Amino acid sequence: MAVNLSAPGQLAPVAGARWATAPAAIKKPGHDDLALLLLDAGATVAGVFTRNAFAAAPVHIARARLAGARALLVNSGNANAGTGRPGHADALACCEHAAAALGLEADQVLPFSTGVIGQRLPLDRMIPAIDRLGDELSETGWLAAARAIMTTDTVPKGASRTVDIDGKRVVLTGIAKGSGMIRPDMATMLAFIATDATIAQADLDAALREAMARSFNSISVDGDTSTNDACMACATGRAAALSPTAPAWRDFVAALTDLAAELARAVVRDAEGATRFITLAVGGARDEAEARAVAFTVAHSPLVKTACFAGDPNWGRILAAVGRAPVPDFSIDGVAIALDDVAIVADGEPRADYAEADAAAVMAQAEYTIAIDLGRGDAASTVWTSDLSYEYVRINAEYRS
Amino acid sequence: MAVNLSAPGQLAPVAGARWATAPAAIKKPGHDDLALLLLDAGATVAGVFTRNAFAAAPVHIARARLAGARALLVNSGNANAGTGRPGHADALACCEHAAAALGLEADQVLPFSTGVIGQRLPLDRMIPAIDRLGDELSETGWLAAARAIMTTDTVPKGASRTVDIDGKRVVLTGIAKGSGMIRPDMATMLAFIATDATIAQADLDAALREAMARSFNSISVDGDTSTNDACMACATGRAAALSPTAPAWRDFVAALTDLAAELARAVVRDAEGATRFITLAVGGARDEAEARAVAFTVAHSPLVKTACFAGDPNWGRILAAVGRAPVPDFSIDGVAIALDDVAIVADGEPRADYAEADAAAVMAQAEYTIAIDLGRGDAASTVWTSDLSYEYVRINAEYRS
Repeated sequence: MAVNLSAPGQLAPVAGARWATAPAAIKKPGHDDLALLLLDAGATVAGVFTRNAFAAAPVHIARARLAGARALLVNSGNANAGTGRPGHADALACCEHAAAALGLEADQVLPFSTGVIGQRLPLDRMIPAIDRLGDELSETGWLAAARAIMTTDTVPKGASRTVDIDGKRVVLTGIAKGSGMIRPDMATMLAFIATDATIAQADLDAALREAMARSFNSISVDGDTSTNDACMACATGRAAALSPTAPAWRDFVAALTDLAAELARAVVRDAEGATRFITLAVGGARDEAEARAVAFTVAHSPLVKTACFAGDPNWGRILAAVGRAPVPDFSIDGVAIALDDVAIVADGEPRADYAEADAAAVMAQAEYTIAIDLGRGDAASTVWTSDLSYEYVRINAEYRS
Repeated sequence: MAVNLSAPGQLAPVAGARWATAPAAIKKPGHDDLALLLLDAGATVAGVFTRNAFAAAPVHIARARLAGARALLVNSGNANAGTGRPGHADALACCEHAAAALGLEADQVLPFSTGVIGQRLPLDRMIPAIDRLGDELSETGWLAAARAIMTTDTVPKGASRTVDIDGKRVVLTGIAKGSGMIRPDMATMLAFIATDATIAQADLDAALREAMARSFNSISVDGDTSTNDACMACATGRAAALSPTAPAWRDFVAALTDLAAELARAVVRDAEGATRFITLAVGGARDEAEARAVAFTVAHSPLVKTACFAGDPNWGRILAAVGRAPVPDFSIDGVAIALDDVAIVADGEPRADYAEADAAAVMAQAEYTIAIDLGRGDAASTVWTSDLSYEYVRINAEYRS
């Protein structure tokens, strides 16, 4: 069902970053569901994590271990969330075994989990597989890792970028997973990005947070913020050194943002049951927060999402969703709505020249833009979302069966 | 698809309140889609209206005409919302014709519309029908009116109550419509309640606002606040006089609240595509606003709603939704979750004695309670909601076709 999304053909290896994958039958047997990323000594790691108050055990552990991190251990099929103290102990045990296999200290391994909430990890199957992961490491393992971390995803997600730093090439490669419970809040489901550049941890952290705002923090599938969201950036220190004072820093941040946005859009394109990829472009706001509030209110409206599924230009639902957004002193008089280049509403009223067939033609496409101008300022924000289909209901009604 | 809801058998007439209905083929021919309520001279009318910033034309007009109101004119099939100045003029024209038919001034008639947004009212078909409404008035017209105001409703909704005021009987009867775009904000879709008691307008207004908080403002189907929500209370002045200083005032407000809550729950029972009626009982909150925020976050979670549709006790989704609610300094440690009498989570962890089969048995029922204790205070709030089914998607994908 993914909208204009296919598996990445090639993902550029990043010197100093090696992946291993293995099957552990965590939810179902027969496919890789463990992935391990080993970074060269001296690498720096930054991360942003879910703001869900009930963050899962692995999130708490990973967040505390950023400073000396050397390895990232990921499992799909089970989120290890809502599992209390036993779940916390399970995550620690996984890290200990991974550390032993890699010759590291346990607190140099960061755990990540994604999948069903509220069930214990099957350590009896996972531990033997983790013990063997150290033998499988490869710099060309990115695509296999992208597959191993999938849950309801239908397509593995990854992308690469290169940046020239004073004539030297720096590589960025990232992978991501996620297609439901997607409304990242300062983070996303799971995304892992590495670069061979040499970057201090604090600088890498700043670059990652800047990139998030216009990528993973600008998407929503269903408004449900996961307990396990995490987006990690790793700099292996094998290529050119970079810092915010360098002329090329903006180029690097732009490439990181661009890469993260491609991964974030891939998550929406592969949203559970999605048949449409919709860009919500809100402008004319007093500030960006206001623009984002309107964009997310529309993105979360079940009535707008079902109209998009139907390809029905029922713009009244868009107007109604905009009208209930938390915007103070909001008047309809300045509002304009357009679907791609079809202007529908101007000054709060349907335009005389609006023909429904034009809007229906836009909404028959697999992807298009809903542009909303609030007519009260200069701030703007863009959010990407998907439609609400029978298939979304089926996937989430049958998820555990 | 309505959950444990059937048409009211009998609705008690209210002296001084007469309904007329008629077919005007507003959306489809062959059934009544106009309803007119005429009140005796001296009646008082109070109303609460949508807080959607883009309130429809009839809402603006009705809100301004409460003081001298004598008649309420309702149409289904078209919301007359997003129609700009022409839509405003259309609503005024309908009121003028109703006033002429009843021998009233135009500004004594309040218009109400519900249905599709963004289309002009078909005045050519409506006006002739309105002109004849004055001949059809009857005190026994409540059920016919309940049918005439339906849109995607499958069951007409109405209820009656009586209160003894110093040995004299006061009657309250109300009707409501609504099954989608339901997340009332200080009002509801459309509800009309009348009593034969004699009550000053300001007192009636206070009673109505108090009743709303625990009825229509405590339900949600899909989080989409309508542009046309209105709940009206009329006191015809034909029976005992009542004021807040009277001993029986609390009895009257309790009966009004109870009646409004029955109508509000009827809206949720008849929610678009609903197969479950779910009571969200949130307790242990620091204040009621916090309890409501958690209840509505869970009520709006597509993942919780699809799990309810599936009858799947995937309580991790409940926990994840609670965790993303806008509650400051929120810790999982004190949280408890139960489905009816099946305790699942205590102190933020799954209970050792929890058996999934017990929770599955609760969720197999057509209605049950999800109880969430936040463990940080004494405040509580109850919200009623429905599940998210294939049928919800079908109804809203096909609504205009």
